[in-house]
Amino acid sequence: MIRAGIVGGTGYTGVELLRLLASHADVDVVAITSRAEAGRRVDELYPNLRGFYDLAFEEPDVALLAGCDVVFFATPHNVAMHMVPDLLAAGTRIIDLSADYRIRDAELWSRWYGEPHASPELLAQAVYGLPELHREKIRDAQLLSCPGCYPTAIQLGWLPLLAASKVDPGSLIASAASGASGAGRQAKIDNLLSEVAGSFKAYGVGGHRHLPEIEQGLTDVSAGPVSVTFVPHLLPMVRGIHATLFARLHEPAADLQTLFEEYYATEPFVDVLPPGMFPQTRTVKGANRCQLAISVPQGRDTVVVMSTIDNLVKGASGQALQCMNIMFGLQETRGLEQVGLLP
Amino acid sequence: MIRAGIVGGTGYTGVELLRLLASHADVDVVAITSRAEAGRRVDELYPNLRGFYDLAFEEPDVALLAGCDVVFFATPHNVAMHMVPDLLAAGTRIIDLSADYRIRDAELWSRWYGEPHASPELLAQAVYGLPELHREKIRDAQLLSCPGCYPTAIQLGWLPLLAASKVDPGSLIASAASGASGAGRQAKIDNLLSEVAGSFKAYGVGGHRHLPEIEQGLTDVSAGPVSVTFVPHLLPMVRGIHATLFARLHEPAADLQTLFEEYYATEPFVDVLPPGMFPQTRTVKGANRCQLAISVPQGRDTVVVMSTIDNLVKGASGQALQCMNIMFGLQETRGLEQVGLLP
Amino acid sequence: MIRAGIVGGTGYTGVELLRLLASHADVDVVAITSRAEAGRRVDELYPNLRGFYDLAFEEPDVALLAGCDVVFFATPHNVAMHMVPDLLAAGTRIIDLSADYRIRDAELWSRWYGEPHASPELLAQAVYGLPELHREKIRDAQLLSCPGCYPTAIQLGWLPLLAASKVDPGSLIASAASGASGAGRQAKIDNLLSEVAGSFKAYGVGGHRHLPEIEQGLTDVSAGPVSVTFVPHLLPMVRGIHATLFARLHEPAADLQTLFEEYYATEPFVDVLPPGMFPQTRTVKGANRCQLAISVPQGRDTVVVMSTIDNLVKGASGQALQCMNIMFGLQETRGLEQVGLLP
Amino acid sequence: MIRAGIVGGTGYTGVELLRLLASHADVDVVAITSRAEAGRRVDELYPNLRGFYDLAFEEPDVALLAGCDVVFFATPHNVAMHMVPDLLAAGTRIIDLSADYRIRDAELWSRWYGEPHASPELLAQAVYGLPELHREKIRDAQLLSCPGCYPTAIQLGWLPLLAASKVDPGSLIASAASGASGAGRQAKIDNLLSEVAGSFKAYGVGGHRHLPEIEQGLTDVSAGPVSVTFVPHLLPMVRGIHATLFARLHEPAADLQTLFEEYYATEPFVDVLPPGMFPQTRTVKGANRCQLAISVPQGRDTVVVMSTIDNLVKGASGQALQCMNIMFGLQETRGLEQVGLLP
Repeated sequence: MIRAGIVGGTGYTGVELLRLLASHADVDVVAITSRAEAGRRVDELYPNLRGFYDLAFEEPDVALLAGCDVVFFATPHNVAMHMVPDLLAAGTRIIDLSADYRIRDAELWSRWYGEPHASPELLAQAVYGLPELHREKIRDAQLLSCPGCYPTAIQLGWLPLLAASKVDPGSLIASAASGASGAGRQAKIDNLLSEVAGSFKAYGVGGHRHLPEIEQGLTDVSAGPVSVTFVPHLLPMVRGIHATLFARLHEPAADLQTLFEEYYATEPFVDVLPPGMFPQTRTVKGANRCQLAISVPQGRDTVVVMSTIDNLVKGASGQALQCMNIMFGLQETRGLEQVGLLP
Repeated sequence: MIRAGIVGGTGYTGVELLRLLASHADVDVVAITSRAEAGRRVDELYPNLRGFYDLAFEEPDVALLAGCDVVFFATPHNVAMHMVPDLLAAGTRIIDLSADYRIRDAELWSRWYGEPHASPELLAQAVYGLPELHREKIRDAQLLSCPGCYPTAIQLGWLPLLAASKVDPGSLIASAASGASGAGRQAKIDNLLSEVAGSFKAYGVGGHRHLPEIEQGLTDVSAGPVSVTFVPHLLPMVRGIHATLFARLHEPAADLQTLFEEYYATEPFVDVLPPGMFPQTRTVKGANRCQLAISVPQGRDTVVVMSTIDNLVKGASGQALQCMNIMFGLQETRGLEQVGLLP
Repeated sequence: MIRAGIVGGTGYTGVELLRLLASHADVDVVAITSRAEAGRRVDELYPNLRGFYDLAFEEPDVALLAGCDVVFFATPHNVAMHMVPDLLAAGTRIIDLSADYRIRDAELWSRWYGEPHASPELLAQAVYGLPELHREKIRDAQLLSCPGCYPTAIQLGWLPLLAASKVDPGSLIASAASGASGAGRQAKIDNLLSEVAGSFKAYGVGGHRHLPEIEQGLTDVSAGPVSVTFVPHLLPMVRGIHATLFARLHEPAADLQTLFEEYYATEPFVDVLPPGMFPQTRTVKGANRCQLAISVPQGRDTVVVMSTIDNLVKGASGQALQCMNIMFGLQETRGLEQVGLLP
Repeated sequence: MIRAGIVGGTGYTGVELLRLLASHADVDVVAITSRAEAGRRVDELYPNLRGFYDLAFEEPDVALLAGCDVVFFATPHNVAMHMVPDLLAAGTRIIDLSADYRIRDAELWSRWYGEPHASPELLAQAVYGLPELHREKIRDAQLLSCPGCYPTAIQLGWLPLLAASKVDPGSLIASAASGASGAGRQAKIDNLLSEVAGSFKAYGVGGHRHLPEIEQGLTDVSAGPVSVTFVPHLLPMVRGIHATLFARLHEPAADLQTLFEEYYATEPFVDVLPPGMFPQTRTVKGANRCQLAISVPQGRDTVVVMSTIDNLVKGASGQALQCMNIMFGLQETRGLEQVGLLP
């Protein structure tokens, strides 16, 4: 039995970890922390968990967490990077769902997050938890950094094209949209139902923090320099990310469907849809799955890839468990067989 | 030209006042205040108003507002009751959209709002701004208190039945539901899209602050003691209130359709639907209108009244303008002819 | 391994059965029928099921279905009552999610459904599949009739009060609301997003087909004649039912919290919330669970019960599987441990 | 007084015309037709119009409509092209909101709409009703063809850049999203709330019927051949279009903000937002307005234009009235001063 702790359990990735772990037979959640809600029962805050956990939030504390085999950070950025060094020293393995260890270059990280990195010496050993790219490294990771939600959807959509040098990596365009749960469970006017419902907008157009992570990841598999124009949008709904990806083809005539199907043939959680089907966020809601479709409109020279995930599952907590399964030698699909909730 | 000021203009009733006043030819908004947004252009916060106003928020200040013919308080409770005495003394007429002067009994007010009333001496002179009940008093009001959104929908639904002594006033049941804009534009986790969308719940079941106001209003027209069981619910949408009202009939056979049609025959903003049609919140969205329907299911002894309004219009800012029109001797419908936005 | 067939698999209760059965280790879905979609792969219509089933829709056919141990009817009313006699004769057990066998009185059924019943001789042997009331009879049922979604939420909310004679059964009021999936997957203008989103309305006020079923069920446990005023409403969302139930207490002072907790103490899928918590439809989304809360507002003489279910799970397909588990001697919770999807 | 007729008044563009015309003092709606709803009162189908019109739907009939000064076609494609020749011959001016006369090349039209054009001889005289491009021609138009909703948002976003030759017209990318009202009021499963709510998807990726119209319009102002990759998406909401437009800049350093502000300086219904503000569909809801913003992310070589309209107003009925005002020599803003409904 794996003893797991969760830091920052009051947010949406926290409750989603608990939902998924409730059906994972090999994990026992022994501690969950929250400074704001310490002392409160978890199932009082999240009544969907009634009957599944007998836990209360506790103050975050290294001694408490050091007894865990694995600690998940379901926190905003700027929390994990302060606590992780001590936990690693205590022999606890870390799965960080925040942004703290996603960018290898500490200076680049600081530029985008507006403060110095608190444990830059760990950046080199942090493994980027995209199993489709780094499965082998994940096995031995002590410090695993989970990809962001947009980066997961976008990288999975472009990987086959870039790895096979089918498109120009210098003029990539990603128009992506996310449900409001991607903004977290924070008391901000911008995320009120009355501000978001029945409306749609772009945001962060000048530069979103997921951009350097996306370009870093794509550079690893590209033949040439990568440049992405990334425009995120806010959807009037709770869960789901849909990325619409545009790239200039070197040769329009390629059989891209087969390319994608072969690239992901053995991946348990990437599903290339048959020609003519396009993904919808609802078909992956609640599921640890990325669904992809490819189209070359009018047979011209631009390929469009559509990529959908549930931002809280394959874009966060599900991917974290997928990585945990790999790290602990379990079957990779363990606890992750949920069917998408449709309708 | 009526010179109008608005206190607390950053909330939803504030922006709704501005929307409606933009098409009211007899009013000039000369000042709008907000402590938090002082100095910011109004149309930066509310881009729907671009081109309609050349205004910035100012610090709330009695001297500034005293130059207005009328001042609207679009504030949470506990603001107006501190500023109104000075403004009245300066000769400014007041239209308070908050709860401060809705309840005539200062002690009862204190019990529900949890603090002493700051200007209880004004409660007796405050006129309750439900034109369908108090049109004559409204004409001369110096201090007008606008009804709450639930109380407007509920009172308009029951008035004809109680005034005609058709039902038992001692066992009234109101099951009502409101869009999230009723909770205002405040940074609260409970009102995030991710908390509200795709869900429905009751709240304030043990006692909602609109209950004493409803019972006070209904008592005025009832033959006997009034008791209301009032359960509000939160709808996963922005605008609209729907009240489903249940009462025990003294005689099942009455022609209630005619009763309602006659009671509201001359009211410009109350629309009794023909038999067989039921109201929907969307048909009054953006309009200063209450639509009503009456049914006696299975011909038994319980009458069901359905009453809908837009909580921000007939439930707040539209009703405030309707009262202002009456107070200033204008045609009552001036600036309030908007058609509901459907779909 | 139980061999199961599904008739009418293209609707929402059909796809929900498939979602739930995907994690039920003891059932093998061997046939699924649809006249309109015969020949089409199930996972083409429902891409959330890709990888879980290798099935195509077939023409409905008694010979095909007679080979099953159990056949689910996930059809509109007026289908099952024609096919069930032959299937029962062939020895297949039936779980009917439609309304065909819910009302024991054939004449009453005809009055509400507007046509003669096609197999009235089976009404007496049909078992009403509310496990909390009829668990023992369900074990041996050959023909099981699943309750409607509103009737499930409403009966579970009132059973403890009526069984203990705490309230007047002659003046019950149910104000209930359902997500749009309750209306099924049918091409009707009334259910378009553009007609339903951002709006709320009552419907069927004069008489909804679930009324006789509710009154029939409550009469079984009541000391006196039952009369329910039932007003359903349509919510601008997909899944979930919330019933707000009002009843007149014989004695206001009773400890109703304990009454409910004791009544449902051993029920795996009924969850009485602690005092002060109110149910939300989102906390049971995707879960086979009814959450209940009780309140006596202002300590007066009216008790309010709030009852929520997911209309497609505890209100349909989940309840059907719960009954199947009982019928086939499996653990009642088998395949039904899903945690609600929140947010 | 302009005597107006509306053909196909039961759809969303029909009811929106009626909403807008209710506040247009110079127009009298004398006839509205619908084959399906003939005989039914307009305000029974659309209760938001109660009190504004005393009209019933009539059978479509050329004799009836020929008495009008102007006839609006608020129909699906393939209706107007059959009736327009007779109406023009009768001296009635036509404003066609459908696609029948949008494409000048009859053969191209046939390829995209799958049937021969019924009155190709009129294509040359039809004026494309985008006032920002064709105001002068609109004045004298007898047959006016209103642009599609996507084409309006997209053309207005790119016009300044293409007219000034700032970008490469051969590699334009439009990622656009529309509320469900764009699909019309038709009984289709794909547009049910339960299919659309809480989800997002691309559609028509291989080729949407608005593509040739967009390319035709942009070609008129471009220096070189135009090629657009156009991907529309369906939003889980009712009203609003948001287009996110990507183009390769010839010179990254240009002052595009000034370019846009000057291009649209005198346009009453195009609003270029200040730097740093991005449009939201909700700020133009119900208003005849296009709001635009420009960004060059990271100062690279790709310009992003965001363009929003209400698809039923500036994308359909509002634009139709704007054209009518021009055609009849009225002030262009007549009846179109509605403020966007926010929140």
